[in-house]
Amino acid sequence: MSPRRSVADARRTRTAILRRGLDLASIEGLEGLTIGRLATDLSMSKSGVLGHFGTKETLQLAVVDEAVALFVREVVRRAAAAGAEPGLPRLLVQCEAWVSYLERDLLPGGCFFTAVTSEFDDRESGPVRSAVAAKNAVWQRELRQQTELAIAAGQLPDDPDAEQVVFELTGQVLALNHAWRLYRDAAAPARTRRAMRRLLGLPAALDGQPELAPLPEPDDH
Amino acid sequence: MSPRRSVADARRTRTAILRRGLDLASIEGLEGLTIGRLATDLSMSKSGVLGHFGTKETLQLAVVDEAVALFVREVVRRAAAAGAEPGLPRLLVQCEAWVSYLERDLLPGGCFFTAVTSEFDDRESGPVRSAVAAKNAVWQRELRQQTELAIAAGQLPDDPDAEQVVFELTGQVLALNHAWRLYRDAAAPARTRRAMRRLLGLPAALDGQPELAPLPEPDDH
Repeated sequence: MSPRRSVADARRTRTAILRRGLDLASIEGLEGLTIGRLATDLSMSKSGVLGHFGTKETLQLAVVDEAVALFVREVVRRAAAAGAEPGLPRLLVQCEAWVSYLERDLLPGGCFFTAVTSEFDDRESGPVRSAVAAKNAVWQRELRQQTELAIAAGQLPDDPDAEQVVFELTGQVLALNHAWRLYRDAAAPARTRRAMRRLLGLPAALDGQPELAPLPEPDDH
Repeated sequence: MSPRRSVADARRTRTAILRRGLDLASIEGLEGLTIGRLATDLSMSKSGVLGHFGTKETLQLAVVDEAVALFVREVVRRAAAAGAEPGLPRLLVQCEAWVSYLERDLLPGGCFFTAVTSEFDDRESGPVRSAVAAKNAVWQRELRQQTELAIAAGQLPDDPDAEQVVFELTGQVLALNHAWRLYRDAAAPARTRRAMRRLLGLPAALDGQPELAPLPEPDDH
């Protein structure tokens, strides 16, 4: 086997481990993600899996990065590709991309970050908890920035407070994940869209116009 | 040891196991709740713990019941004790009791139901998942009932839909749990109260009047 071949192979194996790891972690949580379980699922040896990551914690952190990459591709980039103006228009496509990401069931266990946040939020500290909190904060900051621009442009209802708006938008996405995963409630995405529109001072969507703002088809996945 | 003494002892031990189990499950989840861990924490033998519950699943279900009992005592009964009229007044005290329950940090790991829902919502089925979903549904029904009465009495803003109102109220409590546990955000309870008041068509609370509706001091705990 040429060295080039073996580097490419190693990369492919690493990718396969991380994809399977992310699927598993979305269901079982990051603590349930054991080297042994992954090895069995991928018909590899434990030492084969371990060779790529060294420790369980390194593996967990790599899976967090993989989840962030998925979120960036499916939410952040899809929203950016819509080319909406900064402020309310961009905030609307961000919200739609976020709802659509959950609605499309991209991971077997629903939102990775909700699952993992609930798992790690009570740990006093640690690199996994810090990574999850930091990645979460990046998206919250992104939403707050557009909300602040919308407020500055007078696009939101009276007495708006950007922190409060983002807090409430986040709550509606958490309610969606909750109702969607626990009760398989098919009405949940529409409820979240309706709550978000009201929160942002827009009239309830008309029949046949359920989305917050149209999203272009992504070109790379 | 007299038989009466031994029955009382057994009950005390069972209570101690369940209390410790509920604390642990709120942090680690129900899967993390092992007979071995409980035995170590309580300086008991594994067979001593096992003798009270038989299987891990029976223990998990007993801990779910313990969590329900806490929620009933601290939320449902506190709200009922306020003696508010059915409809909006009662819905307001229910909301306040719910927020206050999280704010008072009664369990070391925050809301047991949020932690456990996130852990079990992707399981296809099983008695623990069913128990969690059913208990959750009881509280949602309670809130919906008061919301429907409030709508019938014309106490809510225009175009209200009881399911939608309860969905959004739940989202604000999930946002509270999220911000409170992950970021230790001290502003989160006030944000949730503000969101709830707005949702129910009430003006934002004045300074020094932060609660949704006053709650009497509970008389039995």
